[in-house]
Amino acid sequence: MEDLKQFEITKEFFDAFKQAVDERNDHHIKSSLQDLHNADISLILEEFDAEDSRYVLKLLPNETSASIIRDLDVDTRKEFLAVFEANEIAAYIEELATDDGADILNELPVKRREEVIGFLKNEEKANYILELLRYDEDCAGGLMAKELVKANLEWTVIECIDEIRRQAENVEKIYSVYVVDETDKLLGRVSLKNLLLANTRAKVKNIYDPDIVSVQTYMEEEEIADIMQKYDLEVIPVVNVQGKLVGRITVDDIIDVIKELAEEERQIMAGISEDVEEDDNIWLLSRARLPWLIIGLMGGMIGAKLIGVFENVLAQVTAIAFFIPLIMATGGNVGIQSSALVVQSLASQMAFKDSLLQRVVKVFMVAIINGVVLSVIVYTFILITTDHNLALVVSAALFSVVILASLLGTLIPLLLEKLGFNPALASGPFITTTIDLIGLAVYFFVAHSLYKVV
Amino acid sequence: MEDLKQFEITKEFFDAFKQAVDERNDHHIKSSLQDLHNADISLILEEFDAEDSRYVLKLLPNETSASIIRDLDVDTRKEFLAVFEANEIAAYIEELATDDGADILNELPVKRREEVIGFLKNEEKANYILELLRYDEDCAGGLMAKELVKANLEWTVIECIDEIRRQAENVEKIYSVYVVDETDKLLGRVSLKNLLLANTRAKVKNIYDPDIVSVQTYMEEEEIADIMQKYDLEVIPVVNVQGKLVGRITVDDIIDVIKELAEEERQIMAGISEDVEEDDNIWLLSRARLPWLIIGLMGGMIGAKLIGVFENVLAQVTAIAFFIPLIMATGGNVGIQSSALVVQSLASQMAFKDSLLQRVVKVFMVAIINGVVLSVIVYTFILITTDHNLALVVSAALFSVVILASLLGTLIPLLLEKLGFNPALASGPFITTTIDLIGLAVYFFVAHSLYKVV
Repeated sequence: MEDLKQFEITKEFFDAFKQAVDERNDHHIKSSLQDLHNADISLILEEFDAEDSRYVLKLLPNETSASIIRDLDVDTRKEFLAVFEANEIAAYIEELATDDGADILNELPVKRREEVIGFLKNEEKANYILELLRYDEDCAGGLMAKELVKANLEWTVIECIDEIRRQAENVEKIYSVYVVDETDKLLGRVSLKNLLLANTRAKVKNIYDPDIVSVQTYMEEEEIADIMQKYDLEVIPVVNVQGKLVGRITVDDIIDVIKELAEEERQIMAGISEDVEEDDNIWLLSRARLPWLIIGLMGGMIGAKLIGVFENVLAQVTAIAFFIPLIMATGGNVGIQSSALVVQSLASQMAFKDSLLQRVVKVFMVAIINGVVLSVIVYTFILITTDHNLALVVSAALFSVVILASLLGTLIPLLLEKLGFNPALASGPFITTTIDLIGLAVYFFVAHSLYKVV
Repeated sequence: MEDLKQFEITKEFFDAFKQAVDERNDHHIKSSLQDLHNADISLILEEFDAEDSRYVLKLLPNETSASIIRDLDVDTRKEFLAVFEANEIAAYIEELATDDGADILNELPVKRREEVIGFLKNEEKANYILELLRYDEDCAGGLMAKELVKANLEWTVIECIDEIRRQAENVEKIYSVYVVDETDKLLGRVSLKNLLLANTRAKVKNIYDPDIVSVQTYMEEEEIADIMQKYDLEVIPVVNVQGKLVGRITVDDIIDVIKELAEEERQIMAGISEDVEEDDNIWLLSRARLPWLIIGLMGGMIGAKLIGVFENVLAQVTAIAFFIPLIMATGGNVGIQSSALVVQSLASQMAFKDSLLQRVVKVFMVAIINGVVLSVIVYTFILITTDHNLALVVSAALFSVVILASLLGTLIPLLLEKLGFNPALASGPFITTTIDLIGLAVYFFVAHSLYKVV
């Protein structure tokens, strides 16, 4: 058994390897990489520039290099492939599964893509890839690979095994053989386990399982991920509108989808507007962050105008200003909590959700409990340290802000979902800025009203 | 082929089913559920109370009911199982894989758990489950199932197939046969595909693949998820410290882990302190939200004291108060953006990360760009609407806050990671409150200093 050293590429190993690459020491390069998994070589190459990486990749067998390129980070891959010739890229693509080949082609500039396609020698593969390029990347058609093993209903087990043998080189992982009729309509599947245990002369139609979950080419990636998770599938067949089997999606691609969606949501919640990573360059990082910061800034300037309107209250009781941070922070926290709960429940696969009214009533009850607890704490604190009037103003405003922020935090993501936007946007800076402003307005309105009364 | 109706349980279907359950109409209940996937029946039962669900589950074969119970939400399952007898639960557990059985036992109160274990009839399974109960739930030992097919190095292909036949009922999904020596030490694997294509008289030792990635029983779930994603695995063998094969983890469990970790991170970022869902009761929801709200509130009260210290500045220039929201919101936004980027980069599987110094320098550069842009906007705005002094104070404070919040937002998650905490905590209310307060302090300090000077 290969031991687990592949997870711990040491600094020494890396430095020696880097030196070998700098010196173009082919022997050392090849021998260092020999025992590594391709996915680990990808991680190492992330640290090299395109020219060095090209040098290393040319030393390895095409099949290995292709798989290393497939596992690179998208940005790195784009950079690397820019220094390769079109025919070299085509040779790598021919070594990969059709879905990975199509993904790489999709990342190339249009002109380059056409050049590379022109160099593809395996006609069947080229046609498959062209078919995949037609689909949107985020739907089943864009995720699926054409590689699969299918068998006709009338075949025997031995014919199935022959077919697997024929396809063995193309289809890296076989989980099941898909059963189709003469028109390629998907009828069911036979697992490899059952094929192995069946009598070799048995007919497929007598051993296949017709209970099969499939997805349509146009289905979106989120939905596919939910289905595969719900039914614990490691692979799912894709059919077109006529029910014909056109491809299959494997679970490794779905894990990538789930991770990407979580990352996207994190970026939305944090107010980062482009898909950036910490190792992107300074300009890109600044650009991704500025839009939401500027929106927050505009919110702050509107807030300044708003407080300006109540300048007379502030001039009369300076202490009103002391509690602006408290009101804003609490409003913001309550709003984010509320929207996060809604986003989470929208993402879960419940069959039946509570009605809008039930939801609002419940949120209202929770808000009242939280509002009362927080207001009592603040009232007591201010009463002890300052005076009764201020205590009354701040705690009344705080209570109103908690209720309002809860309701907005709940309704805004539901509204966004209805309008077809990502509900996680509700936890982002645009909405939190809005809730901040509403909180401020409520605070000064309450202060203004109560100070006139008391 | 079963069509996709299982994803769209209609309101009509549900209402008719509910009526049948209310009327204890066994025939209707059974016929409605016949064509549904077990995972969908689980979703429907989430809407029923424990007694009704027990009635429905008793009508179905034990194997089906067991799988439905396995797919329930944890909270619902706890509620349901409370109304079952210990021997009934034992019967369900015997129908499930050992990992699922152990999970269910782990959810039961200690006394109940012992009772249920006492009722387990299958001795081998009981021993396996007891073994699994010893492990922490979040490590490989707690995730793995004992069900797997293993073969000795010296066996022939036909002996392997016989072993698969013997295990066929226990091991629902077989991806590979694990190859071990006489002491059960893991040596490699043979995929079912290769077994199917090999000559039946071939020896395992001549066809097995010794390049196999495995995990140790104590390895943590995050790490296992990373490994399975990196190497595109649908199953991974688990070995103990002696390298003996003790179980395997399948990808469906890892998808659940990935989803749970994402949800946990979302809750941390949103400041929710317990694992709650929107459909939990009002008290639980309030309780999960209050701790962080109170921390935010305390931050607000400290903020009030802080501003109080600078009351004379405020009395002199009321307009200082106008820009408190702007300073706080920008500081908070910058801090969250910075920490989200760090958390993301900590979660990614890069081989070599930038050094702390490189990171800080980069963050500093980005902060300067953002700080300059934001300060210029604010300076211009205030200059036009108010006066030069105020413009200078606010923009200088804003610039300092952007720099400070960037650095803190970057360093705090790194520090949390070093100390063994979840770095996502840095995007939660505790840290954002701290950044808010530091922002306020900087603002008033700058205002105080500059107004004395100008």
